[in-house]
Amino acid sequence: MENGTVNGYEMDTPKNITIKGILSLLMESIDENNHSRSVISLGMGDPTAHSCFHTTHVAPEAVVDALQSGKFNGYAPTVGLPQTRRQFINFHSFYFLAFQLNIDFISFHLITICLLFCRAIAEHLSRDLPYKLSSDDVFITSGCTQAIDVALAMLARPGANILLPRPGFPIYELCAAFRHLEVRHFDLLPEKGWEVDLDTIEALADQNTVAVVIINPGNPCGNVYSYQHLKKIAETAEKLKVLVIADEVYGHLVFGRNPFVPMGVFGSIVPVLTLGSLSKRWIVPGWRLGWFVTSDPSGMFRNPKVVERIKKYFDILGGPATFIQAAVPGILELTDEVFFKKTINILKESSDICFDRLKEIPCISCPYKPEGSMAMMMKLNLSLLEDISDDIDFCFKLAREELVIILPGTAVGLKNWLRITFAADPVALEEALGRVKSFCLRHSKQFE
Amino acid sequence: MENGTVNGYEMDTPKNITIKGILSLLMESIDENNHSRSVISLGMGDPTAHSCFHTTHVAPEAVVDALQSGKFNGYAPTVGLPQTRRQFINFHSFYFLAFQLNIDFISFHLITICLLFCRAIAEHLSRDLPYKLSSDDVFITSGCTQAIDVALAMLARPGANILLPRPGFPIYELCAAFRHLEVRHFDLLPEKGWEVDLDTIEALADQNTVAVVIINPGNPCGNVYSYQHLKKIAETAEKLKVLVIADEVYGHLVFGRNPFVPMGVFGSIVPVLTLGSLSKRWIVPGWRLGWFVTSDPSGMFRNPKVVERIKKYFDILGGPATFIQAAVPGILELTDEVFFKKTINILKESSDICFDRLKEIPCISCPYKPEGSMAMMMKLNLSLLEDISDDIDFCFKLAREELVIILPGTAVGLKNWLRITFAADPVALEEALGRVKSFCLRHSKQFE
Repeated sequence: MENGTVNGYEMDTPKNITIKGILSLLMESIDENNHSRSVISLGMGDPTAHSCFHTTHVAPEAVVDALQSGKFNGYAPTVGLPQTRRQFINFHSFYFLAFQLNIDFISFHLITICLLFCRAIAEHLSRDLPYKLSSDDVFITSGCTQAIDVALAMLARPGANILLPRPGFPIYELCAAFRHLEVRHFDLLPEKGWEVDLDTIEALADQNTVAVVIINPGNPCGNVYSYQHLKKIAETAEKLKVLVIADEVYGHLVFGRNPFVPMGVFGSIVPVLTLGSLSKRWIVPGWRLGWFVTSDPSGMFRNPKVVERIKKYFDILGGPATFIQAAVPGILELTDEVFFKKTINILKESSDICFDRLKEIPCISCPYKPEGSMAMMMKLNLSLLEDISDDIDFCFKLAREELVIILPGTAVGLKNWLRITFAADPVALEEALGRVKSFCLRHSKQFE
Repeated sequence: MENGTVNGYEMDTPKNITIKGILSLLMESIDENNHSRSVISLGMGDPTAHSCFHTTHVAPEAVVDALQSGKFNGYAPTVGLPQTRRQFINFHSFYFLAFQLNIDFISFHLITICLLFCRAIAEHLSRDLPYKLSSDDVFITSGCTQAIDVALAMLARPGANILLPRPGFPIYELCAAFRHLEVRHFDLLPEKGWEVDLDTIEALADQNTVAVVIINPGNPCGNVYSYQHLKKIAETAEKLKVLVIADEVYGHLVFGRNPFVPMGVFGSIVPVLTLGSLSKRWIVPGWRLGWFVTSDPSGMFRNPKVVERIKKYFDILGGPATFIQAAVPGILELTDEVFFKKTINILKESSDICFDRLKEIPCISCPYKPEGSMAMMMKLNLSLLEDISDDIDFCFKLAREELVIILPGTAVGLKNWLRITFAADPVALEEALGRVKSFCLRHSKQFE
């Protein structure tokens, strides 16, 4: 850990590389006088940077309606104690109670909405589950990022450790460092479609292991796990008595053989914390509307102490704006399949372009054709390159010489690999990959 | 600490009473069959629950414009590393650089906006300071609540303690508990206009004390500190070598003798972390737009390690929606004084009503007439009451018998006191206080 000081007090700073940090450095490294061509970034997982990806008209309309109603400028109440929430689950009795109490219209309305959108998310997610979630199972977060922090902060305790995938999403390591959770990495196996190395998981887990994190559809690998593999993960977690944290921020964004299967399907085998958001599927990452859902038919998370702890933690979090929360039921209800299909078609096309173009580059190999999410991993063969020392060197030289930004695999845990975000305009993608190709050819060793 | 368990793992839960929690219990305690009159809540500090308080048309318009532009659905980038931010401070050079780099319009636009609104807040706050804040000093948070958590999380380290006012705002205790900061309370002195007991502060502080928290204008006391008192606080903090965390979420909402003086005015004496938000002054608490500002002419917070730590912490926070952030410069620029004056006039009127009506109630005394914020404290004289055991008993019986919700002082650290939020419709306030009076008379001892 590095140290900073405030008033002479040592403060530990996690050493982790952050994606934002390394992308900023890459952007800075670009020669300001080289403006013959435009900078193309395939670094961030933010599709809104490319005009071919835009949200459905339904989403902003719902938010504008909520905002202009003037009814959602107040605090969104945490819905009170568990029994209150239960009591309010039945909406007829809730309305009746509220009517009897003559609760001030606006507060009443906010309480209702707060329940309505938790219930809306519960119903939305329940469509893909063999059981029904209730609004009790849903907690709204400021994007999936805050959902990750809540999950890790709730599980952190002295000596606890958590199992994270390698390659993975570095925010988990950063949260773990801030919340004092020991991190243990298990490998995803490229030759097996980036499936989880279950043997490593069994080897890593001990009585202090609190959870195993699964990202499906996969970031950074673009993998989509089969029903069977997810079931095996659930059974392994159950055997080890650890929770599964299922990061499904790319849920439903699949375009390969395997359909998207939510981990919550196996909630009867092992308790699952499902993390998700509107960000990727609705293409509004900046709206910061995420959720933390307990898929837990066994009712472990109904333990009043656990619920109390989670609810108190939410009291110190900002959470999303009330009027955005208020728009959620409308957004979930009114978005039609055509919109989702359109996004998936563009992602399929751009991932195909990516995979095909990269095949033409000798020093780069892709072990797996992406079937979901917005990113893929490719391996560098440094022995074929003249003057490139590693993935970071590759990315900085590429940025300087070709004005193309790609994330070094080191940032997601795999040295001498690269992560490409293919959620980009096909034309820009072709252009960028053309530049990568000429960069690689220019730097490849000459064999007589 | 109470314990909950997940998969048999003990989880500590802070024991703190939360305002939301106790208000929910009070609401639940109301007899559902007693619907002769409406429930009036003077418990929450949320003015939007009362129709006489509403935001300026400017605010929602600015947000709708930002949303409908479609340009702010992406992630708001943290602005990169310190040198990047410096480099971008000069907007002409930034625009020029961006032009040269041909950065993709939208990403470019987001980076610009991210700087523009940090700078907008910096300029807004600088109006009241003897020096200029830069966008480097400003971090955007999801409401003031998240600003509190960031401040405490950034200062937490093993063995550290923080000095909090009593009475105070319980979110501080809750954050401290979750971030493992020891809490030490100093008293606010009712007989001295709720000024800080500086002697206690000196007695409490040791080499592990990281900060002292000042809430001004005061919640829950409605006090507004003089320039001289704030200067004394700064000098005491400097002497003790601790930071001042200045909670100014009620900044500018003053209507008494003392003008509002930001603690940052004394940034040259001691480093100040100023916490604020749009919530109260713009009457949009549900928008979750707050800030964490380092008032630090001495440059302590420019220590790259400190900045790195703060920036990495922000990477794991959700933060507010990009399109709300994008609306901030317009909101700050276009809101006119008339709107602020209107709010302050209503607050003055309602606080006067509160103070005058309470004077008529024998068992209640108000040591101080509120001069700011939206709340005041009143003391219960239990010796004059027949069958009331304490402030909590008082509030539950009041809720059941009179359908009036008031916060027991215990929730803010003062047993047998009460906190009233006077940010309410004058008519509702008169009605509520009338009910409180008859409740008190009904329960007062009969002296022959």
